Amino acid sequence: MKVMVDLCVIPLGVGVSVSKYVALCQQILEAAGLKIKLHAYGTNIEGDYDAVFAAIRRCHEQIHAAGAPRITTTIKLGSRIDREQTMEDKLASVAAQRRNLQ
Amino acid sequence: MKVMVDLCVIPLGVGVSVSKYVALCQQILEAAGLKIKLHAYGTNIEGDYDAVFAAIRRCHEQIHAAGAPRITTTIKLGSRIDREQTMEDKLASVAAQRRNLQ
Amino acid sequence: MKVMVDLCVIPLGVGVSVSKYVALCQQILEAAGLKIKLHAYGTNIEGDYDAVFAAIRRCHEQIHAAGAPRITTTIKLGSRIDREQTMEDKLASVAAQRRNLQ
Amino acid sequence: MKVMVDLCVIPLGVGVSVSKYVALCQQILEAAGLKIKLHAYGTNIEGDYDAVFAAIRRCHEQIHAAGAPRITTTIKLGSRIDREQTMEDKLASVAAQRRNLQ
Repeated sequence: MKVMVDLCVIPLGVGVSVSKYVALCQQILEAAGLKIKLHAYGTNIEGDYDAVFAAIRRCHEQIHAAGAPRITTTIKLGSRIDREQTMEDKLASVAAQRRNLQ
Repeated sequence: MKVMVDLCVIPLGVGVSVSKYVALCQQILEAAGLKIKLHAYGTNIEGDYDAVFAAIRRCHEQIHAAGAPRITTTIKLGSRIDREQTMEDKLASVAAQRRNLQ
Repeated sequence: MKVMVDLCVIPLGVGVSVSKYVALCQQILEAAGLKIKLHAYGTNIEGDYDAVFAAIRRCHEQIHAAGAPRITTTIKLGSRIDREQTMEDKLASVAAQRRNLQ
Repeated sequence: MKVMVDLCVIPLGVGVSVSKYVALCQQILEAAGLKIKLHAYGTNIEGDYDAVFAAIRRCHEQIHAAGAPRITTTIKLGSRIDREQTMEDKLASVAAQRRNLQ
């Protein structure tokens, strides 16, 4: 099953900056061959359900291994069986609707 | 690795009511032997990382099988390696801090 | 407009424990006369849209004032215009569906 | 207080496609003079706390007015008092950390 995920990982107990850990996740997700796109409050991930969640699990393990005693993560997970839809499809769909509004 | 999860599953394309699908998830999570607690905007789940995510995957499969063409899910995922903490521990910890405030 | 909210406030840069800040929010929400129910990964809040969001704003201000340099918060916000629905109604609705499944 | 928000609005009871409502929100947020950036699972918003939340309230009102009987929204809200940080700053910070990893 193909999924679209938005991942936001917040390590606790490591101070105010979290960018080091976000970069680590980005590296892990890319090494897993997943299609990803970073934004200012998380990372969009597109891929097979099991591959995506295996990579998210590695992110958690590696962030702990890198010194974070606690992590709180927010995951949005979208799946649909009516049709395939990529990140680009979703953005194009909103853009098309936007033109209709004007 | 032990985790605390908050799961909120929203099927799309099946009308306004989602309670049937939440009940289905509750049944799946309990059948998996996980400790769960329903609240008004999601379900707290406590258990082993892999067991929790295997059950969440079954929820997605079963909700689609039950007729929902699309699902958008929000998952909060907490893990800590400094100490074990149950749902009850978290609530007790806030209650103790609350007494200190007064 | 009546809303149902789930609030999860995570202060950063204050160490691993967040319960002191959750307790502070609980106090602020109750002082605002809102109906709330704490769970292990957030707080359910029921009330008028403006009253709820004014109280959430105060939570953010007070957590910063209490020493947290950074906060990341997750809010789920539900509104419906087809009918009124309380926290208890939502739980009863799932319980009724659960009985149908068995 | 300046905030960074990630907004994901899901209307229920209007079928499987939500892009029309996302486009409507985009229009409202832009009309409010907010800096926004759409991604595949939400919209990043940067601005003053009150201006951002006033616009999110208008999104909810207008989505209901456009025919959605029920909405469930996920909001991530970040604030910091230690320093100003834009969307671009956050992405640059992760990119810099990423180079350190390699």
